Amino acid sequence: MVRLDSSSPGFRDDFARLLTVKREIAEDVDETVREIIAGVVRGGDAALVDYTRRLDRHGAELTAARIRVGEDEIEAAIRDCPAEALDALRFAAERIESFHAQQVPSDHLGTDALGVTSGWRWTALESVGLYVPGGTASYPSSVLMNALPARVAGVPRLVMAVPMPEGQVNPLVLAAARICGVHEVYRVGGAQAVAALAYGTETIAPVAKIVGPGNAWVAAAKRRVFGQVGIDMIAGPSEVLILADGEANPDWVAADLLAQAEHDAAAQAILITDSRDLADAVEAAVERALAVLPRAEIARASWRDYGAIVVVDDLHGAVPLVDAIAPEHLEIETADADELAAKVRNAGAIFLGAHTPEAIGDYVGGPNHVLPTARSARFSSGLGVIDFMKRTTILRCGPESLRALGPAAITLGRSEGLEGHARSVAIRLNL
Amino acid sequence: MVRLDSSSPGFRDDFARLLTVKREIAEDVDETVREIIAGVVRGGDAALVDYTRRLDRHGAELTAARIRVGEDEIEAAIRDCPAEALDALRFAAERIESFHAQQVPSDHLGTDALGVTSGWRWTALESVGLYVPGGTASYPSSVLMNALPARVAGVPRLVMAVPMPEGQVNPLVLAAARICGVHEVYRVGGAQAVAALAYGTETIAPVAKIVGPGNAWVAAAKRRVFGQVGIDMIAGPSEVLILADGEANPDWVAADLLAQAEHDAAAQAILITDSRDLADAVEAAVERALAVLPRAEIARASWRDYGAIVVVDDLHGAVPLVDAIAPEHLEIETADADELAAKVRNAGAIFLGAHTPEAIGDYVGGPNHVLPTARSARFSSGLGVIDFMKRTTILRCGPESLRALGPAAITLGRSEGLEGHARSVAIRLNL
Repeated sequence: MVRLDSSSPGFRDDFARLLTVKREIAEDVDETVREIIAGVVRGGDAALVDYTRRLDRHGAELTAARIRVGEDEIEAAIRDCPAEALDALRFAAERIESFHAQQVPSDHLGTDALGVTSGWRWTALESVGLYVPGGTASYPSSVLMNALPARVAGVPRLVMAVPMPEGQVNPLVLAAARICGVHEVYRVGGAQAVAALAYGTETIAPVAKIVGPGNAWVAAAKRRVFGQVGIDMIAGPSEVLILADGEANPDWVAADLLAQAEHDAAAQAILITDSRDLADAVEAAVERALAVLPRAEIARASWRDYGAIVVVDDLHGAVPLVDAIAPEHLEIETADADELAAKVRNAGAIFLGAHTPEAIGDYVGGPNHVLPTARSARFSSGLGVIDFMKRTTILRCGPESLRALGPAAITLGRSEGLEGHARSVAIRLNL
Repeated sequence: MVRLDSSSPGFRDDFARLLTVKREIAEDVDETVREIIAGVVRGGDAALVDYTRRLDRHGAELTAARIRVGEDEIEAAIRDCPAEALDALRFAAERIESFHAQQVPSDHLGTDALGVTSGWRWTALESVGLYVPGGTASYPSSVLMNALPARVAGVPRLVMAVPMPEGQVNPLVLAAARICGVHEVYRVGGAQAVAALAYGTETIAPVAKIVGPGNAWVAAAKRRVFGQVGIDMIAGPSEVLILADGEANPDWVAADLLAQAEHDAAAQAILITDSRDLADAVEAAVERALAVLPRAEIARASWRDYGAIVVVDDLHGAVPLVDAIAPEHLEIETADADELAAKVRNAGAIFLGAHTPEAIGDYVGGPNHVLPTARSARFSSGLGVIDFMKRTTILRCGPESLRALGPAAITLGRSEGLEGHARSVAIRLNL
């Protein structure tokens, strides 16, 4: 953990270092992934099974007939889930779905003064593949956050791929898939699953877009199949930035920093405060909380290597620092949280006030928890309904409006050396 | 050109071939581009000048002091432009700007029954770099289509990079930049320009997103800097699909097919019709029009290698073919164009009726002409205002609403093995 002070002479350089620290080592798996994709394109189901047997623990049990997870298996898994967890999942799903229902974009069609009709129409993607990691990173909440916006968008075919490194799928993941109305579930993972979703096999029909988190192989495969299908952003390690004044509760702030840090040793938790006392108190509170946290080893590594506490003179003056960090999650625990938030340009999601820990947003707040990481909130947004729709623009001229627009189009076509463009207009106007 | 008939036995295979034909050979410039980017990151302006001198025709004239195009040069270029072309550009800009003004998305904030406040806020990107190719592919209309949505979005810093392979910039490109309110213009191109926009040099401050078309080097550089900055889609060769019934004018249809084909030998123009007579008449009309087209060599190669006329029994029954092609541009020249259009899921832009040649949309219609190619209309949209904005979600709980949401969040956090998440909620509820 580094302590920075905005009034110290080296602050500019120290802060720049905080911004540019590399938290991920890119594994060079691209060549292997290229071969796996080519193999699945050539070999279909047989290749998918073959790669799974070779690469996945417990993969030996897979056969082509078992690629698809049966309805009976899903039912059985749901019966295995604790009722309390199922209730919590359903509660979360309802809140996420009703939040996202407000994001459905409007179509538009109008006629202007020259008589030209123009506008656009949004349509749902015809099919979406949701990748869900296996093992410990197999989070049911992530199924909800990826699948529900697609369902709200009206995607008629929603497919899930989830590997089974432990020999079976996390029952809550299957329950989440059922709650979200996922139509097909396949027990495959890795680059081979991404290839199957993109290009199709005998069992798996191809999809138009693939979303969801994954390891280095999955990320490399998504980059490679982009163009053949759409993909979502490639997520990096998670981050939180907390702005807090001297009134904030140091134990609450410490708990939120560690909730982020426990995700991953490469996660990053930063506190910016105008109170040296709070900074000291939070530093001590983090150590107390770490002593009793189950995932302390991971959280401690993250806090040690990437954690930071920055003391500033004035939190409003620190907004440029926030915009430079462009955090995935921004908590504002100050009396004037709304005013401060209004000044921020770059953040994936903002959590206002002392009673909005980021973890509420991970599960049951309503907004999506798939958010831009690694400073990409400067240019991108969290997952939403429009990521599962696309816009088709519409234009209609009649003879009169074409007469009004045509001459300018002819002039511009000729000025660009595109006489054929000009003629396609001129021929209709007898010009 | 291929003629297909949906009633012939080999149609399925022939049509599948039409869908999968490769129209572009990917040049393998990735290693060179990697070196160029690393060079500019290390060397700044000096490297930018050095690469330009080595790689660009007329590049020898560049010095660091001349990287930025002066206001006096822009003024002088505008004085060189024909008044008719300037008027047409301004007319186009007004129409494009007022169309895009309708796309500005709304913010939203509401409080639900549990007392949770949630919503989102859209903000403009802090800066955008617009790449404009040099030489013959330097289209002023493309400047309008890329820059105006950014201006409408409220981007406070809009930068243009345009190489000068002929020793000077196309004056209409500089005029278009001025009309769009571009703030800075730099006379650099290629991978080195993309690197400078992404990472910055002494002269060029870095931007948050890079948009605009370019050659293989530019495309490879954009892919490489993605993550450091946002990028738009990588555009492939242009396409048109025309649906026309027996009442369509074959000369008009032929003119529209060739307006597409003249772009590029890799462009693709397809007609689907339910009239064998129209098919024959268009085939003949294309040959007549080619005989007198200035860019006949390019258009003829495109029509020969990738053109197609598909005769079907019923145009409404052909909608699945349209969705499979997912054309960048779809013209519908039938009596029931609106009804047909309503059934189409996948198309970048639709042009309705006989008096809406696609070229109107290239220049003065209003909708954007930067559209998804190569079947990517299955999962993506044309350029629009939201490509220059991003959404920050907002969440606020008070003590009461946290009490309502907290238990489910705690349950889900524990079920995912994230005790730190659960504790950050529990600590606030004394649980």
